[in-house]
Amino acid sequence: MHIAVLGTGMVGEAIATRLLEVGHTVVMGSRSATNEKAAAWVEKAGTGASQGAFADAIAAAELIMLATKGETGIEAIGTAPATSVVGKTIIDISNPLDFSQGMPPTLSTVNDDSFGEKLQRAFPDAHVVKTLNTMWCGLMVNPTMLAGGEHTVFMSGNDADAKTQARGILTQFGWPEDSILDLGDITTARGTEMLLPLWLRIYGALGIGAFNIRVVKP
Amino acid sequence: MHIAVLGTGMVGEAIATRLLEVGHTVVMGSRSATNEKAAAWVEKAGTGASQGAFADAIAAAELIMLATKGETGIEAIGTAPATSVVGKTIIDISNPLDFSQGMPPTLSTVNDDSFGEKLQRAFPDAHVVKTLNTMWCGLMVNPTMLAGGEHTVFMSGNDADAKTQARGILTQFGWPEDSILDLGDITTARGTEMLLPLWLRIYGALGIGAFNIRVVKP
Repeated sequence: MHIAVLGTGMVGEAIATRLLEVGHTVVMGSRSATNEKAAAWVEKAGTGASQGAFADAIAAAELIMLATKGETGIEAIGTAPATSVVGKTIIDISNPLDFSQGMPPTLSTVNDDSFGEKLQRAFPDAHVVKTLNTMWCGLMVNPTMLAGGEHTVFMSGNDADAKTQARGILTQFGWPEDSILDLGDITTARGTEMLLPLWLRIYGALGIGAFNIRVVKP
Repeated sequence: MHIAVLGTGMVGEAIATRLLEVGHTVVMGSRSATNEKAAAWVEKAGTGASQGAFADAIAAAELIMLATKGETGIEAIGTAPATSVVGKTIIDISNPLDFSQGMPPTLSTVNDDSFGEKLQRAFPDAHVVKTLNTMWCGLMVNPTMLAGGEHTVFMSGNDADAKTQARGILTQFGWPEDSILDLGDITTARGTEMLLPLWLRIYGALGIGAFNIRVVKP
């Protein structure tokens, strides 16, 4: 599949690199067609990797993975013509973290709304699936490096086919079927985005980011 | 130890009953000295159980466990003379859940503050420890009923001795040492209170409340 990864940060790079590894072609999208970090990644990643401005990356892609900072993803996707995202799945890995008041960050959207819902409202003809946003990027793409993958990745979204697509990618990344927990529609993204403040405190207590939570049930 | 459990709901009753089982005496506090639910519990629980108005329960107790609804705990404790709580540990199990907009509830304090912090600010001479607020009450008091207790209970608070006291009670309830995660000072209660929206969605997806999360680390 040809996939656009939007965002050139640590998360975007980890996702893009892993997508290539499991057999996809990837265009890394950023504000400009000549972004230096994207260019460096393309050179390092080799065959199957390319870069482009957000709009071009989106237009060319069959599926979009959003790894931009904070709430900038709406603006990023908004640079593409609305027709570019019709019927496409947008896997939203981003979190509405607000660092403007210092550390630890707060959430810029919280409690009675979520960034995942805002994204779905902004692009009603796309199918947003919120997933992978609750952990360090190393675990997103290589879950079996921790406890054989026996920890939990959540999923929220309104469209069953889009969730099946997202589940397919999670499976390619190494997520065991039993570790994927479908929470329901996109409003359940409120729950996973609101895990971030706890994630940050656990990170502070443990001093490592390579942990995850597991839902333990009877 | 003589412990006041404030609140006559499902959580208060579970905590009060278990405290008796592990050898404490318990006064169940409520708005009136003749609360019917408290009276029914005292009759059922037998030796070591008593009831009283919040102020009397607090004055008599060496330690306070707060299991009131929403943010009402500040008003409840405020009915006692300020001197009644000086130097005492308040184990805060409550969550600032707001059901006024329907289900699922939102949080009435969130993001840049927490109920745990508000409680500590309201009673600066008491030592607030936030713990046990992230799970179903059956698991709070009998953690080994799930995965032998291999799931996580968080703890937040400013006072080391108060945390040692709270840890002692958790241990009596059956929590393994490795399952207790001290997150740091009381501001970390923002993290655990903000888990509730995710808890509610997991509950919705699984259809059972007898689950918990476990922090899985390398």
